[in-house]
Amino acid sequence: MATAPKWAQKTITLPPHKRGCHLVTSKIVREIEHDLSGFNCGLAHLFLQHTSASLTINENYDSDVRDDTETFLNRVVPEGSSAPWKHTLEGPDDMPAHIKSSMLGCALTIPITNGKLNMGTWQGIWLCEHRDHPSSRRVVVTLNGI
Amino acid sequence: MATAPKWAQKTITLPPHKRGCHLVTSKIVREIEHDLSGFNCGLAHLFLQHTSASLTINENYDSDVRDDTETFLNRVVPEGSSAPWKHTLEGPDDMPAHIKSSMLGCALTIPITNGKLNMGTWQGIWLCEHRDHPSSRRVVVTLNGI
Amino acid sequence: MATAPKWAQKTITLPPHKRGCHLVTSKIVREIEHDLSGFNCGLAHLFLQHTSASLTINENYDSDVRDDTETFLNRVVPEGSSAPWKHTLEGPDDMPAHIKSSMLGCALTIPITNGKLNMGTWQGIWLCEHRDHPSSRRVVVTLNGI
Repeated sequence: MATAPKWAQKTITLPPHKRGCHLVTSKIVREIEHDLSGFNCGLAHLFLQHTSASLTINENYDSDVRDDTETFLNRVVPEGSSAPWKHTLEGPDDMPAHIKSSMLGCALTIPITNGKLNMGTWQGIWLCEHRDHPSSRRVVVTLNGI
Repeated sequence: MATAPKWAQKTITLPPHKRGCHLVTSKIVREIEHDLSGFNCGLAHLFLQHTSASLTINENYDSDVRDDTETFLNRVVPEGSSAPWKHTLEGPDDMPAHIKSSMLGCALTIPITNGKLNMGTWQGIWLCEHRDHPSSRRVVVTLNGI
Repeated sequence: MATAPKWAQKTITLPPHKRGCHLVTSKIVREIEHDLSGFNCGLAHLFLQHTSASLTINENYDSDVRDDTETFLNRVVPEGSSAPWKHTLEGPDDMPAHIKSSMLGCALTIPITNGKLNMGTWQGIWLCEHRDHPSSRRVVVTLNGI
């Protein structure tokens, strides 16, 4: 039956990115476009398996927007000698990273329409790396639809 | 087979709302209730295709809660001469709008039970408009279930 | 057909927790593991039916991370005499609770792989209770997959 719902799931690895917000739409789409093209209608779920980075959807054009968002995150979450954290063993950037991860979230669900992610014209997928030391990051991608 | 999973997807347009938080549950339900009524169990996914507004679930009764949330957003995200933003070409409210969009998020997933959105008694869907100039906003709604 | 998509949905009740962030992974898994074991690939959706508590995914090991996140939330959202809220009838902790609920969100979607929630090694599910007075909290869990 042509319209029987299908599922596809894979874990992709994003290479290390420096602390800040990064546009990763094309990196992610490249990994899943073959599967994606088989869905006329559905949902794509991206799940970052980490607690010191985050995924969010935001502006895809001007890199200043990513820089300003990083500036905001660093202003709203105290770090270093002025910070009240008890959890400091893994470095001064670790506890702020956990907080930022929950503020933005570690997962996204995006509609699929006609074999493509159906985001708005100015939307893109951002990986926000909240640690000083870059490391690769795993994302479990689950596709579901007809 | 009566329980074969079904999918429905449509794009709805919310009319322009002034800057602030707005309860839009009934506007959204009106657009999807015919499809919704065909699902005994499932999920409804709402995806706002914009980067300067957001969707969130919160209190559905007292409009002061929406006003206070707008007050909070304006206090936590600096705007105007005190703000450190590089991205200012589209106006002083634009970069704060992007930040607020990622803080609250542009998507919601809500359980469907017996043909209705299964939210709590006091929950409603809010559209938060973060720009000064109101514009209509597109929401891709994807329903999936049995 | 062995791979026909399946749906399972149930409402679980989390017992009252004091104000703060609490690791509830095992409480939730215990309630759903029988159903979960029947899915090779899918998604688990958790939906908290309340507007003054939240669900988030974060660090599952050091309770200081939960305490520090609570400290952050209390610093970023004003409460008491310094707060500008109009909505105060339900107590000084109520309006801050609504704001925190939208900051962290009331819903999570987690991939299912081989009958288990496929989170990262250090990830766990947190219930964040934002009210002073603990109350039990309902979570609608929807499982979907093959």
